[in-house]
Amino acid sequence: LTKVSDVGERGLIERMLDKLTRMPDMPLPYWDDASAIEIGEERVLVVNTDMLVWETDIPTGMTPYQAARKSVVMNVSDLGAKGVKPRFFMSNIGLPRDYLLSDAEEIARGFEEGAREFNSYVFGGDTNEACDVIISGFALGFARRDRLMKRDNGTQPGDYVATTGRFGLTSAGFRHLLEGYSLPEESSKTILDSIYLPKAYVDEGVALSEAGVITSCIDSSDGLAASLYDLRHSTGYGYRLNYLPLDPIAEKFAETNDLDPISVTFYGGEEYNLIFTFAPRHVEKVVNALGSVGSKPIIIGEVTKIKDIVYDNDDAKVPILQKGWEHFKA
Amino acid sequence: LTKVSDVGERGLIERMLDKLTRMPDMPLPYWDDASAIEIGEERVLVVNTDMLVWETDIPTGMTPYQAARKSVVMNVSDLGAKGVKPRFFMSNIGLPRDYLLSDAEEIARGFEEGAREFNSYVFGGDTNEACDVIISGFALGFARRDRLMKRDNGTQPGDYVATTGRFGLTSAGFRHLLEGYSLPEESSKTILDSIYLPKAYVDEGVALSEAGVITSCIDSSDGLAASLYDLRHSTGYGYRLNYLPLDPIAEKFAETNDLDPISVTFYGGEEYNLIFTFAPRHVEKVVNALGSVGSKPIIIGEVTKIKDIVYDNDDAKVPILQKGWEHFKA
Repeated sequence: LTKVSDVGERGLIERMLDKLTRMPDMPLPYWDDASAIEIGEERVLVVNTDMLVWETDIPTGMTPYQAARKSVVMNVSDLGAKGVKPRFFMSNIGLPRDYLLSDAEEIARGFEEGAREFNSYVFGGDTNEACDVIISGFALGFARRDRLMKRDNGTQPGDYVATTGRFGLTSAGFRHLLEGYSLPEESSKTILDSIYLPKAYVDEGVALSEAGVITSCIDSSDGLAASLYDLRHSTGYGYRLNYLPLDPIAEKFAETNDLDPISVTFYGGEEYNLIFTFAPRHVEKVVNALGSVGSKPIIIGEVTKIKDIVYDNDDAKVPILQKGWEHFKA
Repeated sequence: LTKVSDVGERGLIERMLDKLTRMPDMPLPYWDDASAIEIGEERVLVVNTDMLVWETDIPTGMTPYQAARKSVVMNVSDLGAKGVKPRFFMSNIGLPRDYLLSDAEEIARGFEEGAREFNSYVFGGDTNEACDVIISGFALGFARRDRLMKRDNGTQPGDYVATTGRFGLTSAGFRHLLEGYSLPEESSKTILDSIYLPKAYVDEGVALSEAGVITSCIDSSDGLAASLYDLRHSTGYGYRLNYLPLDPIAEKFAETNDLDPISVTFYGGEEYNLIFTFAPRHVEKVVNALGSVGSKPIIIGEVTKIKDIVYDNDDAKVPILQKGWEHFKA
């Protein structure tokens, strides 16, 4: 008898999708970061849902406030990755009977402050009794249909691959929390905050979408490697990376602990950078778009006809493996 | 230290709502059955979310297919109660690692068939690892803002109180499943199906909304008594009931088992009748509206200035108590 852990989350989703009638004319396909509905005049409603389960998903030391705010962040990040401004947030929570009321209020405060941080309102929700703390969040926003940045939005070989930020802080933090690696005192707070108070690049996503030249976009919530594999699943192309977008603090952490910097960069997760592609001739438009929100692209490589995903520069030439965060996998 | 079980679900929600900034110009207030967003030209998007947790919410004998279909039913019922046709369904599920893949596929089939039954599509979702089976459903639909049937939609003393169906089948079924009462052989399937394959009155809700004369509406998911208390919370009025809308099969079950028919009618739950009010002069419009979808109103009493909720006819005059289903309550 096959268990869900035998096939992993992707296998499970494939099997479940097989049972569904596809809605005609879906503005975003299944397997994209979010779901969309046409609401008339070429406008779409874009919706995302993500669930946090305390025992599985919440790292040691994270408070109820932070968990609730993170639920907002992970949901709005997926909208941002599609170029959509979040406007509304809703949550369905499960709590054990003996959960402290003051902690439940902290969860509400996390929703509120998270939503307001991204110019959204909490407009509804529901509560239930459960075996563990379950936070099922739901973010909504509107967009012009032709500005949605799909995972395959017309990607071509030769397109640049870029990100909105550097990687590795959460990698370092999880190695500390889960494997006992020590953190350098001077950067301990920065590293832990990357986990407890993650950042979403929503303004960047909206600005990129307005530029109108992005040929694919995804957020890096499952790690840089896993996200590139997700892009490949949609585009059918490969990716050759020649620049390691490693955060300097994470680089120092890797050095001190004798860890492979490539591994720290590619195989993290719970980081919400945007990963996107565009034709080299549009680099100025992209720089200007991100510049308008105080940010800039970090170009890390290019799209290739060959389907491999490799890191290839003067230092090293290594295949990037399909690993990163996936539920139900050992 | 106060626990959520000390204040119950309503107390918990009150405390959580206190932390939230109200969205300006909400088309449906907090504490209504669903949530709404203005999307332009007096149209609104209406959204509902409800969570099912296997251990707490799923009765003995219910299959994964039925649980998933029920998640659709309970969500679309809340839209129907506002007069909104459901169009889209989404679900976020949590499953234990060792859950059978075939059962997960049955859950997908329940979403699919439930959604199609109500002319909707499953347009997205997510999966997670959890301690128990968690089904967090979301239903969405559009409506004209001025046709939304709020819990207080202009209720006046003297308005009739009516329902779309009779009560008590689920009461009988739960007394069998939870307390061991025996079911009459000839109606055992009807009674159990009322729990395993519940019905939602969506077409009735949409037809009532189109009539334009409904002064309040709610679904009876927490039981007839609890729903009348919810209406009172919104309208500030009382309700005098003079007709017992007891299903004949449930009535026979009550007789055989020497149970109070008033209790079987009022204190059930997991039944999705609509309860609504309208001015007596509009009775013909209401009859015609429901007639157009093959249904008819059951008038059970009237709205009163006095805030009591009482059952008062020739047989009996008894106060209706504020009890029914509430999470976290003993």
